Amino acid sequence: MKVSRHKAKEILYSIAGAPETEEIDVRDSYMRVLAEDVITERDYPDCRKSAVDGYAHIPGYESYTSAGETGAGRKGAESISGDETVFVMTGGNVPDNALAVARVEDCTVENGRVFIPECKKGENINNIAEENAKGDVAAAKGSVIKDGLFPVLFYLGRGKVKVCKRPKIGIFVTGDEILEAGEEYRKGFVYNTNKYILESMFRKYGFDFEYAGHVKDSKEDVEAAFDMMSGKYDIIISSGGISMGKYDYVKEVFNTCGYEILFSRTAIKPGSPLMAAKKEGCTFIGMPGYPAAFMTNLVFYIIPFLRKCYGYAVFENEEVSVTMGGKTSSKEGRFDINRAAVRTENGVLTGFDAGTQKTSHFISFAQVNALLLLDEETGTLSAGDRAKAVLL
Amino acid sequence: MKVSRHKAKEILYSIAGAPETEEIDVRDSYMRVLAEDVITERDYPDCRKSAVDGYAHIPGYESYTSAGETGAGRKGAESISGDETVFVMTGGNVPDNALAVARVEDCTVENGRVFIPECKKGENINNIAEENAKGDVAAAKGSVIKDGLFPVLFYLGRGKVKVCKRPKIGIFVTGDEILEAGEEYRKGFVYNTNKYILESMFRKYGFDFEYAGHVKDSKEDVEAAFDMMSGKYDIIISSGGISMGKYDYVKEVFNTCGYEILFSRTAIKPGSPLMAAKKEGCTFIGMPGYPAAFMTNLVFYIIPFLRKCYGYAVFENEEVSVTMGGKTSSKEGRFDINRAAVRTENGVLTGFDAGTQKTSHFISFAQVNALLLLDEETGTLSAGDRAKAVLL
Repeated sequence: MKVSRHKAKEILYSIAGAPETEEIDVRDSYMRVLAEDVITERDYPDCRKSAVDGYAHIPGYESYTSAGETGAGRKGAESISGDETVFVMTGGNVPDNALAVARVEDCTVENGRVFIPECKKGENINNIAEENAKGDVAAAKGSVIKDGLFPVLFYLGRGKVKVCKRPKIGIFVTGDEILEAGEEYRKGFVYNTNKYILESMFRKYGFDFEYAGHVKDSKEDVEAAFDMMSGKYDIIISSGGISMGKYDYVKEVFNTCGYEILFSRTAIKPGSPLMAAKKEGCTFIGMPGYPAAFMTNLVFYIIPFLRKCYGYAVFENEEVSVTMGGKTSSKEGRFDINRAAVRTENGVLTGFDAGTQKTSHFISFAQVNALLLLDEETGTLSAGDRAKAVLL
Repeated sequence: MKVSRHKAKEILYSIAGAPETEEIDVRDSYMRVLAEDVITERDYPDCRKSAVDGYAHIPGYESYTSAGETGAGRKGAESISGDETVFVMTGGNVPDNALAVARVEDCTVENGRVFIPECKKGENINNIAEENAKGDVAAAKGSVIKDGLFPVLFYLGRGKVKVCKRPKIGIFVTGDEILEAGEEYRKGFVYNTNKYILESMFRKYGFDFEYAGHVKDSKEDVEAAFDMMSGKYDIIISSGGISMGKYDYVKEVFNTCGYEILFSRTAIKPGSPLMAAKKEGCTFIGMPGYPAAFMTNLVFYIIPFLRKCYGYAVFENEEVSVTMGGKTSSKEGRFDINRAAVRTENGVLTGFDAGTQKTSHFISFAQVNALLLLDEETGTLSAGDRAKAVLL
């Protein structure tokens, strides 16, 4: 069952159920997805605060009497009278009836009197609720807790936060020709790469998986892996075994295991073999074995699908426009995904073809940081042409 | 000692020493930095491999006798004679004298004979070294092991990899007004946010730190923190205590502790207080206490500095050009760093001012994903104007 890329995405997104939620300690929330709108619980700031180290006062007097000091976390005078002034540290509360704060470096103290230059009303005072009012939405459900949002949760005084539960993902890799890192090389064999593509790419999005290991190309072994994993995981991802080969048992086995096949090929290059199947709340994703095909399908289809499963509000890939810095070729009438290195040249995102686009090649991924999406009308692009890209 | 941003960067980069190196298991190398050029140890592929599941043969015969099969990890016939054909699985070795592989779906088998359509010489055969030759550089020293590079190391059969040692970084936070997550709110106090800015931003770059805790605003406590940390860490980073305030002891203490002050303010807004000092191989970085000022200095100065300390070949921030989607204001004659949300609109990176640029505000960082670098000539920008940005 070969489907268009649009149909494949439609199917995948339709089977990605809304995640359950849980409340966790905010310290453990990095890379989790918000399952609640984060509402500010009080005004920010909730009292008038000084923007500088300086003298809070009522303008209009020639000089002032010191009435102590107040700082962030240090309680000082709550009000002042006439020509009193309170030294306020940055972030400290400004006495209720003070009208301005003068920078300490602009003031002088002589014989116990403080001389303050002319200030405007409100100068250097941060007003109540000027940043956010109580009840404002600081961050929306479906946001990923990273970058600035993670510390903002602390800033807002959150101790706990409601996040989306993570689906349980199980992985296995098939192939008699697979060696593991550290094993001695044998001619004609290949090293397990796809497990580490998942490790590398999953960490970027806060995904995790359990590795069920490496399964030999026999019907019995693949069946045993399926039996062990079905019911235990929400999503099972396999690598290899889904082509036309005689030893490609994955396709055969998951067919006989009662899974409903949703599609088994999609119209993209590289990596048209991609299977999706469903059985009682378990989604099976069969990925092609070639690392380049595996990576392409992962980025184009599976990461957006998993982002939806993890509760990301924005789950589809962001497509940026890049200017080609050289030639890249695609076949007219086919949707090609070309590997490229994108870098900023004079502030402009500029894409360079990876040199090889063969499905069997992978080493260029050491340099590749983008996939060019070249639709059926594209053909060959030259330097200066624009292309759509997904940045890794 | 106020210095320009250029001078501050020059000083920071000059004190960032080249990291030592260590050899580690490749499985532990995610987000580490290569301390070696990665050289391919053999040809890729190192024997002719089939690009498809199909029949390897010498073109020119009407039909063929089957001479067995071979697959990835399955040894088959090493050569064929005349009208023999070997079924080869994708990735399997092609017999030495076979000249082409026909796709299985294009062939027919009748009465024990295999009928193969016309093939070009070399069709569906991946040649020796066509991907990479032995001795090629697959990845350069100073590259970060993430994205595609991490799995490429496995693909290349690496068991160990030489990486840069990480500097030991110690952190402390100052301020009597600091509450920790989960503590009950007290009016006028603020929650520890800067520690979590570091946690959030450090993880993006593979940096780590030890947290020495929260130090009260007293000379004794700050001095004790310094004594405890000096010598133990390569880099000490503090938050707060470096302004003009009476309780800003950090500046005073590290002065008396024998550190050479390199600068204490830089010409940027927000967050001009930023201290750098040096003593016997230990670098001290004193960051401003306001979270927005802390974040800005971290992104603009400290992350590039740390990337250099960690051995990144490319350590300076990448500046991208964004098109403003609305107004943003800066003061002429000053270097302003404005918070913005950048998103792709019709393929174009479009920047939107965060609404507030006040140093005392931080909640907008829940949405902000870029800092606009607005130099002294900029003034006010309107929709359609271009601006330089660093993406978080």
